[in-house]
Amino acid sequence: MKTLEEELISCKTNNQRIFEQRTNLPGVINTIIENLEDDTCFAHIGDEPIHFSTSVQEMIDKFREILFPGYFSREKLDGANLKYSIGQTVSQLHDILAEQVTHVLRHDCLRYGQACIECENKGYGTALKVIEEIPGLRRCLAQDVIAAYEGDPAAKSHDEVIFSYPGLYAITVYRIANILHKLKIPQLPRIMSEHAHSITGIDIHPGATIGSRFVIDHGTGIVIGETSVIGNNVRVYQNVTIGALSLPPGAGEKLRDAKRHPTIEDNVIIYSGATILGGETIIGSGSVIGGNVWLTQSIPSDTKVFIETPKLIYRYQDEDK
Amino acid sequence: MKTLEEELISCKTNNQRIFEQRTNLPGVINTIIENLEDDTCFAHIGDEPIHFSTSVQEMIDKFREILFPGYFSREKLDGANLKYSIGQTVSQLHDILAEQVTHVLRHDCLRYGQACIECENKGYGTALKVIEEIPGLRRCLAQDVIAAYEGDPAAKSHDEVIFSYPGLYAITVYRIANILHKLKIPQLPRIMSEHAHSITGIDIHPGATIGSRFVIDHGTGIVIGETSVIGNNVRVYQNVTIGALSLPPGAGEKLRDAKRHPTIEDNVIIYSGATILGGETIIGSGSVIGGNVWLTQSIPSDTKVFIETPKLIYRYQDEDK
Amino acid sequence: MKTLEEELISCKTNNQRIFEQRTNLPGVINTIIENLEDDTCFAHIGDEPIHFSTSVQEMIDKFREILFPGYFSREKLDGANLKYSIGQTVSQLHDILAEQVTHVLRHDCLRYGQACIECENKGYGTALKVIEEIPGLRRCLAQDVIAAYEGDPAAKSHDEVIFSYPGLYAITVYRIANILHKLKIPQLPRIMSEHAHSITGIDIHPGATIGSRFVIDHGTGIVIGETSVIGNNVRVYQNVTIGALSLPPGAGEKLRDAKRHPTIEDNVIIYSGATILGGETIIGSGSVIGGNVWLTQSIPSDTKVFIETPKLIYRYQDEDK
Repeated sequence: MKTLEEELISCKTNNQRIFEQRTNLPGVINTIIENLEDDTCFAHIGDEPIHFSTSVQEMIDKFREILFPGYFSREKLDGANLKYSIGQTVSQLHDILAEQVTHVLRHDCLRYGQACIECENKGYGTALKVIEEIPGLRRCLAQDVIAAYEGDPAAKSHDEVIFSYPGLYAITVYRIANILHKLKIPQLPRIMSEHAHSITGIDIHPGATIGSRFVIDHGTGIVIGETSVIGNNVRVYQNVTIGALSLPPGAGEKLRDAKRHPTIEDNVIIYSGATILGGETIIGSGSVIGGNVWLTQSIPSDTKVFIETPKLIYRYQDEDK
Repeated sequence: MKTLEEELISCKTNNQRIFEQRTNLPGVINTIIENLEDDTCFAHIGDEPIHFSTSVQEMIDKFREILFPGYFSREKLDGANLKYSIGQTVSQLHDILAEQVTHVLRHDCLRYGQACIECENKGYGTALKVIEEIPGLRRCLAQDVIAAYEGDPAAKSHDEVIFSYPGLYAITVYRIANILHKLKIPQLPRIMSEHAHSITGIDIHPGATIGSRFVIDHGTGIVIGETSVIGNNVRVYQNVTIGALSLPPGAGEKLRDAKRHPTIEDNVIIYSGATILGGETIIGSGSVIGGNVWLTQSIPSDTKVFIETPKLIYRYQDEDK
Repeated sequence: MKTLEEELISCKTNNQRIFEQRTNLPGVINTIIENLEDDTCFAHIGDEPIHFSTSVQEMIDKFREILFPGYFSREKLDGANLKYSIGQTVSQLHDILAEQVTHVLRHDCLRYGQACIECENKGYGTALKVIEEIPGLRRCLAQDVIAAYEGDPAAKSHDEVIFSYPGLYAITVYRIANILHKLKIPQLPRIMSEHAHSITGIDIHPGATIGSRFVIDHGTGIVIGETSVIGNNVRVYQNVTIGALSLPPGAGEKLRDAKRHPTIEDNVIIYSGATILGGETIIGSGSVIGGNVWLTQSIPSDTKVFIETPKLIYRYQDEDK
């Protein structure tokens, strides 16, 4: 045991040591600042910032408030406030969207030396085009909700699908991001889809083409690649990959514009854990792909594909001890 | 290169165009508002709002502060403040819970034209019932923590399990949501479980029945369906599905109340990637289900089931190039 | 239909009932407080709190602002503000880090009765050591970014990798947490890695050893265990497990310090769904592990391992109905 005096000395020594350590901080900071000039590393200095994280969440939230009016708003919507509330939310969304699109355009344009006011102009134009798509989006998402409810005995109501299904969240964000992708807006669609990926574990590239009444059940672990083409009325379960074939090293650059992901025709069901790969692979309409199937070739219409039941080995506990 | 004058004209033209684009916004907003009357889409107008997102997070946080006292609180708990701090947190949780339950009850009751004060009454009654379960919940979760620690060599302490294991987070939320589910509260349990799903990648339906000392290791990609029955001392690894058999199209409605998910008896271990399906499938007590096994039939007690080691094909790099 | 008078009575009765229910709350709270003394449950009373959740997010955000300057900052960085902005962020990070490390050290030290000022001293010392690693970390992460871009045809730019790839997020957090782990800081590295796990679905234990140019594509469902050793230039796809062999019950304690996870040598690619298990398993350099392969034995260098294409069963829809 230390005496009180020893304790005090030990305490002073420690305080002294903390103070001495803090005096080293400026030197370390200088080293970090000098290291900023190391151009083998990535820095984004002089470039337009992309205020993405909180803004992207806010933007997606506003979209959902408008696409499913009254479901995600803090206040009750009724005849008295409906028009004002939705009108104001749309107007706010328009401004956020215009600002975000301008940011990502400027980010790329500064790099290539174009003038900035054109980016702002294109930002406002794009925001308006996206907002104009909202009525169509609402009809499309309504069909997604109905299809999800119809096929899932655990769903108690359409409202439950809207309030709590991660599949619907991911599809909603995909359908918005896909509009931006088709308008050739860089960065933003991918940042949106990775946000949804983070929330849901569902990774749908904004470049994918997906028809109506698309359903994702359970959702975690799904990957749908950039050049996938998916028809109407398709249902996909957890841990399904619709992806590219393996690439020889360094092939990244060369294949950047090729169709590398499969085509899934109408009315197909893909059960959990199935993997379908390759740009020339076509799953014919009405087919059913069983759990854990691994496919790299095309399948004709109205076909069911299952893996042979793997032989299971049974052992009683006392046999192997 | 543009002259300064040309730059100025171009700039003015662009500003003009931005202004013109903004004047189109009111028209677009009107179209969106008119579209609200399209009743093939979903709107929630005149219905009670469900303030879910931030409130559900807040509610789960308060539960965790009370269920593991001192672990997740901002202030240090000791003899001096313990009673007041816990007392106040319980009281806050009670009020949030009463409000949330009232909201979801009203949401459904408005739809069927019942009186609202009864919802509020039931909301307070439910909140109290849930709060009363807390001591039992704490004992139950303590067993879950101990079981997780015992089986995992990477765990350095019980505290580490409590602070950082996503499996424990998901089980905690499941055990709360299950109480609400058994009290027949709509929407809220599912919104809670989907919140945990989003945080952890673990999807446990609040309707599942799960015994004591339940362990989820690593967690991502787990699905446990609504009518699953799981005994005591069961351990489950990543990417395990305890799910329903595939359904004929349109079967959703018909099967809404059937037992569609397996029964797992006591002391079972299910390794990563295993899939167990079907309401009549029973995994006997003490059995071990190996990685990637796909089971749709029952297994007697004390059995180990593995897949035959799949034949692997080895090729040296220079053979195939 | 009720008369107005009946409605009023019913309303009063309900208000009465709510009031009565609220009067039960203090009793319930008392029961919960008494239950705090049940030492079969976990409580953390008198222990130093660990302010983890918001602080860990804030800490990771500051690291990312410094490691990729200008990418994640709210303000534009240029020659005028660069030094001040980075300098201030580093200084803030230093203080958060010192505080967090002190907290977790105190948390453990209180338990063993050591003096607290030494924890603070060690907290400041550790923070400085971590900050000193930043230039090296930046060079290392730059190589991770370049490797991710080179192998992925869906990546449009290095910026896209930095802004939106969950794999890079998880690797960034791993590389920071690994530094803290090597400095023998308890709790904090695991809390950080579980935070990244929650955001990305990628679970890399801070104790793993991972070389340069490490790439995770798509990311969800990845598990990399505590004692894994991974070389340079390794690429891993979604749902890959680099894990431990199954354990006999109760083995947790005994194996807490053994090498339980595989060694992956340089230039290896591991495709989606592959599982590699066991502390003595070594995957030789330059090898390719195909999708869904399940490996518990070593593989020589430059080998490709695939599963035999499982026999698929095709059935036309009209055959089986």
